[in-house]
Amino acid sequence: MNKKNDAITARDVDFAKWYTDVCLKAELMDYSSVKGFIIYRPYGYAIWENIQKYLDERFKKTGHQNVYMPLLIPESLLKKEADHVEGFAPECAVVTKGGYENLEENLLIRPTSETLFCEHYAKIVKSYRDLPKKYNQWCSVVRWEKTTRPFLRGSEFLWQEGHTIHATEQEAIEETLNMLNEYKEMAKNLLAIPMVTGKKTEKEKFAGAIDTYTMESLMQDGKVLQSGTSHYFGQGFAKAFDMKYLDKENQLKYVYQTSWGLSTRLIGATIMVHSDDNGLILPPRVAPIQVIIIPIKPENEDVMNYANLIKKSLEEKNIRVDIDTTLKTPGFKFSEAEMRGIPLRIEIGPKDIANNQCVVAKRNDYQKITIEINDELSTKIESLLDDIHNEMYEKALTNLNNHIHEATTQEELKDKLEQGGFVKVSWCGDVDCENKIKEETGATTRCLCENESGNCIYCNKKTETKVYLAKAY
Amino acid sequence: MNKKNDAITARDVDFAKWYTDVCLKAELMDYSSVKGFIIYRPYGYAIWENIQKYLDERFKKTGHQNVYMPLLIPESLLKKEADHVEGFAPECAVVTKGGYENLEENLLIRPTSETLFCEHYAKIVKSYRDLPKKYNQWCSVVRWEKTTRPFLRGSEFLWQEGHTIHATEQEAIEETLNMLNEYKEMAKNLLAIPMVTGKKTEKEKFAGAIDTYTMESLMQDGKVLQSGTSHYFGQGFAKAFDMKYLDKENQLKYVYQTSWGLSTRLIGATIMVHSDDNGLILPPRVAPIQVIIIPIKPENEDVMNYANLIKKSLEEKNIRVDIDTTLKTPGFKFSEAEMRGIPLRIEIGPKDIANNQCVVAKRNDYQKITIEINDELSTKIESLLDDIHNEMYEKALTNLNNHIHEATTQEELKDKLEQGGFVKVSWCGDVDCENKIKEETGATTRCLCENESGNCIYCNKKTETKVYLAKAY
Repeated sequence: MNKKNDAITARDVDFAKWYTDVCLKAELMDYSSVKGFIIYRPYGYAIWENIQKYLDERFKKTGHQNVYMPLLIPESLLKKEADHVEGFAPECAVVTKGGYENLEENLLIRPTSETLFCEHYAKIVKSYRDLPKKYNQWCSVVRWEKTTRPFLRGSEFLWQEGHTIHATEQEAIEETLNMLNEYKEMAKNLLAIPMVTGKKTEKEKFAGAIDTYTMESLMQDGKVLQSGTSHYFGQGFAKAFDMKYLDKENQLKYVYQTSWGLSTRLIGATIMVHSDDNGLILPPRVAPIQVIIIPIKPENEDVMNYANLIKKSLEEKNIRVDIDTTLKTPGFKFSEAEMRGIPLRIEIGPKDIANNQCVVAKRNDYQKITIEINDELSTKIESLLDDIHNEMYEKALTNLNNHIHEATTQEELKDKLEQGGFVKVSWCGDVDCENKIKEETGATTRCLCENESGNCIYCNKKTETKVYLAKAY
Repeated sequence: MNKKNDAITARDVDFAKWYTDVCLKAELMDYSSVKGFIIYRPYGYAIWENIQKYLDERFKKTGHQNVYMPLLIPESLLKKEADHVEGFAPECAVVTKGGYENLEENLLIRPTSETLFCEHYAKIVKSYRDLPKKYNQWCSVVRWEKTTRPFLRGSEFLWQEGHTIHATEQEAIEETLNMLNEYKEMAKNLLAIPMVTGKKTEKEKFAGAIDTYTMESLMQDGKVLQSGTSHYFGQGFAKAFDMKYLDKENQLKYVYQTSWGLSTRLIGATIMVHSDDNGLILPPRVAPIQVIIIPIKPENEDVMNYANLIKKSLEEKNIRVDIDTTLKTPGFKFSEAEMRGIPLRIEIGPKDIANNQCVVAKRNDYQKITIEINDELSTKIESLLDDIHNEMYEKALTNLNNHIHEATTQEELKDKLEQGGFVKVSWCGDVDCENKIKEETGATTRCLCENESGNCIYCNKKTETKVYLAKAY
């Protein structure tokens, strides 16, 4: 790749600056006048719509139903589960007035909706016949943040939150793991991002959960991003909210519960895993525009006829295609298409038509291919898009595999962390060691991995537990 | 129709109670612990998803793009347009604290997002080449209300808000009228609801608009419901927010602007236009379940095989179909299907199978039809669903036409208002007369109709203006 785009800072000059350059210049988002609240521009929102469409279909196929719960939570409701309020209260935006009047009780903008689902479930579930309940909600949530970055950490973000209740522990645990797996499959099949998955430590788990499972992805700068979580709650909330049902033997039992969420943060992951110094590189299946046709000499009627013909044949295959008919130079259009990360660019001019061909440029590796214009063109483009997806996934997977290290000494740990990515270490399970490691290296425990004998990297105590450490967003 | 369902109050006993009975018993919604904030349950939310899907497709086909703007608006931003803040400030929920700290400036939960769109447009639009911008947003908004009713009036509701800017007045006015027409077509084609459309009076128009166009529907109790509005703003907001662009002659010009919104209130309209004393009656195209198959003796293997066969053949036609396999009696299942407003119910038992037939019951008119089970079954069901849609629309249209009255004296006006529906009267255009009419009759101006000579119904002044009056929700 030749860096051709001066509007974007190079990654090795300043990765953080490169990231915000891409976000802004590819017109994915803009800042609003409230800190931490971004505007999702059409191109960025369309990526989210494609993620929504994929997941919503999967959720429905696996027996989930969409609902919508209130935006505001009474303070007293959030307080019903002790760990939960401790985790979320400090992040809440508080409504104290409505229609010029002071409210009797403060209302919190939902930072997450467990408490609302619990209150509703407690009301509508009476019998084992009512179980399971598997609800999902698409909405925005607000969590007051001091340091914010587009898509990665904001005071408001878009997400889905699934909330389910079950008659048995086993069923609830299965749901927790199934949904984590749905997330991982989506990341692979739609976003071409390989994920490391596992259970969070006690310190890092969700406020109120028994177990939190996470998927974590590796960015190009070697830092790691938590990309989706699935929680098993056991009966904690059930007891706090009195969520009981009559079982087949007419006994009152508490339900078992899960929740799982995935957010617009995934847009950030997609940018940081795949893109380069010339701008965004979007995996084809999530790209709002998959193919852009750039007519060389659009004033030539033949050229436009061919461009329209190609467009139509691609549309018949449900490929998302556009023609750039603006009055800019072809070179300018090329770099604009690169900036926006459009997977395939088709160039067609009078010379191409004379040879009954067009030139196809792949965004991911800058390869140019000359293709004959005939009935098979659209099939070829379709398979090129699949190729691009697979190449992008393989590249990301190779990078991930090259950055899963092991360390047995603190020296080695620091050295490996310098190289970026995950470092697998033995850990005694003590939160003090976890805190000390963070203090001294800046790395946090991302998730537990396999059980294997060893000595805790910090206190040297014998242990069976291994954990992934990484510097994370 | 025989009233068979004691769980629902009859319409002529208490229409308001009937309405909330249907909302609750058909499990469309539930109350939350915050007044005016409802829970959209799966069945109710699925209706909204079908409305969304229809409209979103139309919006995209007509060149609109989806975006997402922040939930919170700085108080100072709302104040930039004088009429707008006067209209909305009294209804706002106010965030005064974020993460335990008092905010420097109060933030308002969006009651509508004109100001946010204006701020963004002012920033991104430079030249005539950037115009038009046609954005839409799906979200929830908060307007603090004293009296609330499910779907009809709530402190939070779901909606879409379109916001567009244009280079010329003509283009903006066309957009305003086109979108009103899109709404009207959707109401007709999806919800089987006929609408009365027209321009609002000065008093009733949107805060900050030059013209507001509305569509109004007639409920079964004779009251009228504002069901969607489209606003033409001229350059009012453009001047307040400095939304300028360079035209082809390199002159700085202000843009012309529109906005248009439609909300979950339409669910309320659908209920109140079509349903009866046995529960909900849903128009087929918006119904989450279009056909319910009720096996008589589901323990009979043949019966279940046939039920599954029918289900499969309907699914191949993309008909939304379900089998009720619960252990309730057929009679109970019938009234449950009626309560939920499922357009068609298929009854199939051993006797039917012996005769190679099934019984199909239409929800809208309780007609029962015996249909042979063969290759044409699914085509017949498909056309029955279309029949139901048309019958429901025609019935609603006849009712509407029977309730468009005229009056030339105040006596006559009161008499006609008693009969329910719209009353067309001459009106001088003076807001004092408008206020007096409301005071004395309880009716408000719904929209202007054709220009025709007459004398103002209140002050007797000569006028060319006629207006629709009605008692409204």
